[in-house]
Amino acid sequence: MNSVSIVGVGLVGGSFALALRQAGFAGRIFGVSSQPAIDAALVRGVIDEALSLAEAAAVSDFIYLAQPIERILQTIGVIDEHIRPGTLITDAGSTKVAIVNRAAGAISRGRFIGGHPMAGKESRGVEQADADLFRGRPYVLTGRDQGLESWIERIGARLVVMTAEEHDRLVAVTSHLPQLISTALASVIGAQPDSAKVAGPAAVDLTRLALSPYEIWRDIFATNADSVDAALSSFITKLEELRASLRSPKMERAFEEAASAAKALRR
Amino acid sequence: MNSVSIVGVGLVGGSFALALRQAGFAGRIFGVSSQPAIDAALVRGVIDEALSLAEAAAVSDFIYLAQPIERILQTIGVIDEHIRPGTLITDAGSTKVAIVNRAAGAISRGRFIGGHPMAGKESRGVEQADADLFRGRPYVLTGRDQGLESWIERIGARLVVMTAEEHDRLVAVTSHLPQLISTALASVIGAQPDSAKVAGPAAVDLTRLALSPYEIWRDIFATNADSVDAALSSFITKLEELRASLRSPKMERAFEEAASAAKALRR
Repeated sequence: MNSVSIVGVGLVGGSFALALRQAGFAGRIFGVSSQPAIDAALVRGVIDEALSLAEAAAVSDFIYLAQPIERILQTIGVIDEHIRPGTLITDAGSTKVAIVNRAAGAISRGRFIGGHPMAGKESRGVEQADADLFRGRPYVLTGRDQGLESWIERIGARLVVMTAEEHDRLVAVTSHLPQLISTALASVIGAQPDSAKVAGPAAVDLTRLALSPYEIWRDIFATNADSVDAALSSFITKLEELRASLRSPKMERAFEEAASAAKALRR
Repeated sequence: MNSVSIVGVGLVGGSFALALRQAGFAGRIFGVSSQPAIDAALVRGVIDEALSLAEAAAVSDFIYLAQPIERILQTIGVIDEHIRPGTLITDAGSTKVAIVNRAAGAISRGRFIGGHPMAGKESRGVEQADADLFRGRPYVLTGRDQGLESWIERIGARLVVMTAEEHDRLVAVTSHLPQLISTALASVIGAQPDSAKVAGPAAVDLTRLALSPYEIWRDIFATNADSVDAALSSFITKLEELRASLRSPKMERAFEEAASAAKALRR
């Protein structure tokens, strides 16, 4: 890997650039982004130079797409004619099936491996970029490449290789379902006048995700609706089971099972 | 208020005793509890003296019941014959209708006002007692008493007066529903092999309550099942609405409403 282009120089793209540098990457890092993002990235030294997508594609052997999902899909649709043969392209989108399928149809001169770093911050933008953003966090790849895997490990992330389908099914449960739960809970609490008077830490903690901006979630739901629907269905079934057990000793077993699962998540 | 008995000297009862002292209460504080709790409370100086319930009731003009709900119900059933006329009794149970109703039928020589401090810690026991546990947190009373209200304010809590029915309906939404949501989510995540591999902070945060021990919740569900059932029903209805909006622009409005409600909870 000699020259890298980051397409979409925000929190994730900028952090990946900084993480590569910290991990010893000595080549050029190009940035493709909006003018304000480019200006901020140059000031912080996150990228070496700003280029257009076509220019960047022509001079890179590794291209990192860190845009919103819909923009990643668009970029994949136009990038193939600009790249050098054999260029490795990956992305950081929150869903994988739609992106990997689009790449399979659109990228023939390069190689595409889907990616999803399970890392983020409450604030966005390259101003928040952090070389340690990925440290200790899962980083999913939907295919294998020795060079890419080695960099993922060198930036401190925990490499996880799985299919795009498996990824989307799992994050529907571990990420997209929690978002919808938090949104629904905030609405139900908000519909009760005076509820804020008695709200304790449980209500505050569980409604934190409800503060998330919709703009990120529109694309996630659009590209993972079937898995999210299935996750909601499983969750509602479980809630109905608990509801039927409110006055039953079965609830104790349900609490024990759930506590075991919650502990397993923390190991 | 000259002499106080704390019945159930654990985290909440012990913290109330410490908070009274810190707020300037100069009278005697008696403790009624299990021997290990009494020993720990005496070592920490949380109480002045251990008595039996009958002894404590006979020498106190204020009695604070900080036991589990079922034990509070039992204590209320037997305490009236032991108290001095006019003694003020309150409690710290997490549900109020069952307790207030029991008191209305069982306490005639004293006065009973239900209470619920919205405060706690992950660890329990008088060893964790803290004079500042109630500071800045809501403290619900189901009736009015100038002396009691004044002490609630002097220990730094935010006094909230409402009926037992209103309390139980609201905490079903703000506290009991979040617990069941967390329990259900942990179960659904646990049922997906490999989900821990991709679980991020959202999954970890939303399953924290699932680690709660069932012994506290058994009594809460037993004494607030109707309101919890209604809260689950509202929540499931909202989830079904979101599920139907996964591919619809309606989702944006739902996110905006929920974000407003989540912000209101934080004001």
